[in-house]
Amino acid sequence: MARVLYDLCGIDEGLRFSPYCWRVRYALAHKRLDFETRAWRFTDKEALAFADYDKVPVLVDGDETVTDSYAILRYLDRAYPEAPLLGDGVAEARARFFKHYAERSLAPAMMRTIIMDLLNAIDPKDRGYFRETREKRFGRTLEEFHSPAKGLAQLDAALAPLRGHLKESDFLDGEAPAAADYLVFGSFMWARVVSTADLVSNADPVYGWIERMLDLHDGMGRKAMRVTDIEGAYR
Amino acid sequence: MARVLYDLCGIDEGLRFSPYCWRVRYALAHKRLDFETRAWRFTDKEALAFADYDKVPVLVDGDETVTDSYAILRYLDRAYPEAPLLGDGVAEARARFFKHYAERSLAPAMMRTIIMDLLNAIDPKDRGYFRETREKRFGRTLEEFHSPAKGLAQLDAALAPLRGHLKESDFLDGEAPAAADYLVFGSFMWARVVSTADLVSNADPVYGWIERMLDLHDGMGRKAMRVTDIEGAYR
Repeated sequence: MARVLYDLCGIDEGLRFSPYCWRVRYALAHKRLDFETRAWRFTDKEALAFADYDKVPVLVDGDETVTDSYAILRYLDRAYPEAPLLGDGVAEARARFFKHYAERSLAPAMMRTIIMDLLNAIDPKDRGYFRETREKRFGRTLEEFHSPAKGLAQLDAALAPLRGHLKESDFLDGEAPAAADYLVFGSFMWARVVSTADLVSNADPVYGWIERMLDLHDGMGRKAMRVTDIEGAYR
Repeated sequence: MARVLYDLCGIDEGLRFSPYCWRVRYALAHKRLDFETRAWRFTDKEALAFADYDKVPVLVDGDETVTDSYAILRYLDRAYPEAPLLGDGVAEARARFFKHYAERSLAPAMMRTIIMDLLNAIDPKDRGYFRETREKRFGRTLEEFHSPAKGLAQLDAALAPLRGHLKESDFLDGEAPAAADYLVFGSFMWARVVSTADLVSNADPVYGWIERMLDLHDGMGRKAMRVTDIEGAYR
């Protein structure tokens, strides 16, 4: 039975923008595991009923069904111990901080910058769902929440520790990438796929790391379809 | 030969507020290593000439002289492998991020909040040096830089990943503290010693962690002299 990743898609089936799914794609490539993806949309809740879950990523690996990106990384380390992603003990505890850093510092700042691009990249039948759930979360309309100037200033502040770290080593996990890199880079792939916003200047040490991450695993990030690759889709 | 830590002091020899020195104090306690401290002031540059360095912490351990808090933690792991602080490989690479997070996200926000309290806690003969070097760094006067409202808002944003992490485990390093906890907690000790500012509400998961950190190693943090313990010093 093939290994299958349920993966969020946008206006085109090939447009894959979920930051959580990108973590898992990089993690699977890190372990050199083959996989197929199933394009999934926010409103396809029934398609995930088998997993008793309503979001992606969902990984089906033989008899195992695993949901949630961090749990999938843990599962992959247990099932395929070669080339650890999170590792054990204190290494794993420290990796978890990068998950929170990506989700609570970087992603909210990026969201504020790219949200209208994101809405535009989402399948039209998902847009009502996306607007309703996000407007409830933000307590205001998407248009009110949208503020690239504020988002970029917030991102600049949030990137400070990453910048310091990447002045000293090529990857967050040292000389080679592992889970900390993938947990954080998922958010950069999310922004890259849906938007052309310049989030990081090319003089920033973070920029060089993004380039290295795009090149990894046969350029899987760099090869990914972007909304600008779809004729007439980016406006 | 006794193990000696050169440690920054303020208006009282017992008032020890350097965040970098606090990292080392916790690290030495973690390793259960006895040490003495030598009170040092910003302008006592000659006292550190033997170490070819002009800042604290400086640790003298037998024949070894080690400067810089992170280098001291690495030295302690090499010289005393029991009870690892930073660990090796990917664990060490991840620990380094906490250093940058403390220095580049948390400390600047705290600094903005407590800088006038900090100036007040510094030995009068060091205040000119402190003002001059910091005003040069900030590009404005201490009074202009001082903004508790902005500092607290900045700190609230910077604490987001710590908050998420500490909802899931008692310490940054998991069930027990190690280097990640000490690297970050140094900044909280710094603020605590010189100021009574409420940096974190008691409803915040970070608050419980601060309390646990204060209790560690026979309450070494909780027992530390604060500026409020010195009659007439806090105004």
